[in-house]
Amino acid sequence: MNKRAHNFSAGPCTLPLECLEEAQQEFVNYRNSGMSLIEMSHRGKHFMEVAEQAESLCKEVFEVPDDFSVLFLQGGAILQFSMVPMNLLTPETRAAYVNSGSWARGAIADARQYGDIYVAWDGESCNFTRMPNTKEISLQDNTRYLHITTNETIGGIRFPSWPDVDVPLIGDMSSEYMSRPVDWNKFDLIYGGAQKNLGPAGLCVVFVRKSILENTNKNLGRYLRYDIHESKSSMFNTPPVFAIYMFGKVLKWMRKEGGLSAMQKNAAEKSALLYGTIDQSGGYYRCPVDVACRSHMNVVFRLPNDDLEQQFLKEAAELDLMNLKGHRSVGGCRASIYNAMPFSSVEALSTFMHDFSTRNG
Amino acid sequence: MNKRAHNFSAGPCTLPLECLEEAQQEFVNYRNSGMSLIEMSHRGKHFMEVAEQAESLCKEVFEVPDDFSVLFLQGGAILQFSMVPMNLLTPETRAAYVNSGSWARGAIADARQYGDIYVAWDGESCNFTRMPNTKEISLQDNTRYLHITTNETIGGIRFPSWPDVDVPLIGDMSSEYMSRPVDWNKFDLIYGGAQKNLGPAGLCVVFVRKSILENTNKNLGRYLRYDIHESKSSMFNTPPVFAIYMFGKVLKWMRKEGGLSAMQKNAAEKSALLYGTIDQSGGYYRCPVDVACRSHMNVVFRLPNDDLEQQFLKEAAELDLMNLKGHRSVGGCRASIYNAMPFSSVEALSTFMHDFSTRNG
Repeated sequence: MNKRAHNFSAGPCTLPLECLEEAQQEFVNYRNSGMSLIEMSHRGKHFMEVAEQAESLCKEVFEVPDDFSVLFLQGGAILQFSMVPMNLLTPETRAAYVNSGSWARGAIADARQYGDIYVAWDGESCNFTRMPNTKEISLQDNTRYLHITTNETIGGIRFPSWPDVDVPLIGDMSSEYMSRPVDWNKFDLIYGGAQKNLGPAGLCVVFVRKSILENTNKNLGRYLRYDIHESKSSMFNTPPVFAIYMFGKVLKWMRKEGGLSAMQKNAAEKSALLYGTIDQSGGYYRCPVDVACRSHMNVVFRLPNDDLEQQFLKEAAELDLMNLKGHRSVGGCRASIYNAMPFSSVEALSTFMHDFSTRNG
Repeated sequence: MNKRAHNFSAGPCTLPLECLEEAQQEFVNYRNSGMSLIEMSHRGKHFMEVAEQAESLCKEVFEVPDDFSVLFLQGGAILQFSMVPMNLLTPETRAAYVNSGSWARGAIADARQYGDIYVAWDGESCNFTRMPNTKEISLQDNTRYLHITTNETIGGIRFPSWPDVDVPLIGDMSSEYMSRPVDWNKFDLIYGGAQKNLGPAGLCVVFVRKSILENTNKNLGRYLRYDIHESKSSMFNTPPVFAIYMFGKVLKWMRKEGGLSAMQKNAAEKSALLYGTIDQSGGYYRCPVDVACRSHMNVVFRLPNDDLEQQFLKEAAELDLMNLKGHRSVGGCRASIYNAMPFSSVEALSTFMHDFSTRNG
């Protein structure tokens, strides 16, 4: 039995133990081939099977309609910040962005290198404590897409429902990937890094509406073209073999656990336990986020003062409640409770929070 | 003791067994932390230590001077086909490329999207069976760099020595990375995918001369800027954690085995054994490559006819001599004998080649 910490890291982060143990067991001599999977040609039968399974499983688990393709890319969500406008914008069109915080700001900054970009709603005035509702989003003529960051990892906010606008949505779902159903009709493209809900770092999973690929920009280096990756089933160049393999294992685990609806339900219950602990602490813990927009993945909270926060983090770590420090840009505490985080770990955190506030109230 | 195949894959490919076994042992519970390394924040102490060690070890093993930085990127060598001209070219400058075969052609095609590119030597007329010597390379005015593919994986050719030109070299070394010393004075940038000599797929290692970063193009998405990655020590975004970790283990193995000079000597001996077997077969095996330009990593050869090649591959596989089929674009056979390929596996192949030609001569 492997010792396990309660790992509240914002990513890379907790993965299902059974996936790790299976991978360990298979690591050196994959299916008695005399090779590790990471030593095998990506065009050989073993890895082709792994990649095909990951592709079909992620469409099944994420309930992806047939008019979308999935691409396994590299460079993280951040390379998508460039690839989206590079591929989708033309000199005649512009793109709208919701500025919902740290990650949205990055997407906007990169997109500005590749086209006419404007901010359709700016969360700065409310200090990024909520998402906009549809009627607050101001769209201009010739807008090719509205880009949203569906969950902000640092601010701990999410869209409670998808904006209902007349242009296609593009979603960066990195920090809540495959934890809730998507209204696919509204989206042209969804992307995200795998290193939170889906697997290890080094894999970016992109879902793209097939019909838009005909009109994407072809005057790009080939790695930067969605149509090239799609036409080669993500085998245009050597893909990140090990990350795809682990992603496949996580998908199998997700399916076994009950799929997307189970992930959604678990996330709601885990986050409700922590938000309840915060809200029922008589103001000892405070969550700055608008109640309707509270993330089900990243629960941010403050204690009465910095000294108590330091003490809290120190005592938590002594109980193996790890990586609860908030992002350095905002301070405070943050519990990231991604799909693979067991309910029991969230309970352990809640119990500790009760105990700590009682002792230090 | 793990069963091992003789794995002649062109990449991903054979890695040192001891690195795989160590990684397996550490995989689920890294240093008794209660987490796998792939579950840890890339900014936490464990991975920071891994990344710093990989960085300093690769500078040590590859004998990299202090005026170069190393970057750990994603997207393979193919993303570098775009990033090199994007970052280095200006409207006033052009770039020269040696067209040495399949990989060079890709580099040229991508670069043409980003600047004024010309072919300074074209191997097409000799069917890509050799590299140019310096006096065959025709450079034009205002040439920012000469791009070379130092080893062509498919054609099985390499530069026996570095071109001696008046402009900086850029080298794609993917398929012979860290198997021979580099004349660093001649290069501004060297890049390559890790998945041959260095580790698993999903990591691209770039060495860049620090002094050129001031003048690189800043009007790019941030993932595409060398200066950004350099200023953040490759931690601008979540790096490919597991690939960097394995790379570090391979580097330790390389150092223990005697470093770059040992890798170079081993490669010379392993390739000499196979080329000798070919040349002494009385014309049964043929290597189309000019003797001076024969790769020390990818040994390509033909048999008298297609039927015998099929028979050869089949019988080889029965002896666990795996992945000897040549690239589909050129046919024939290819033995890729990267750094981690044991001499004993090359001997086993040589013995089989003797035996097969005797039986089927």
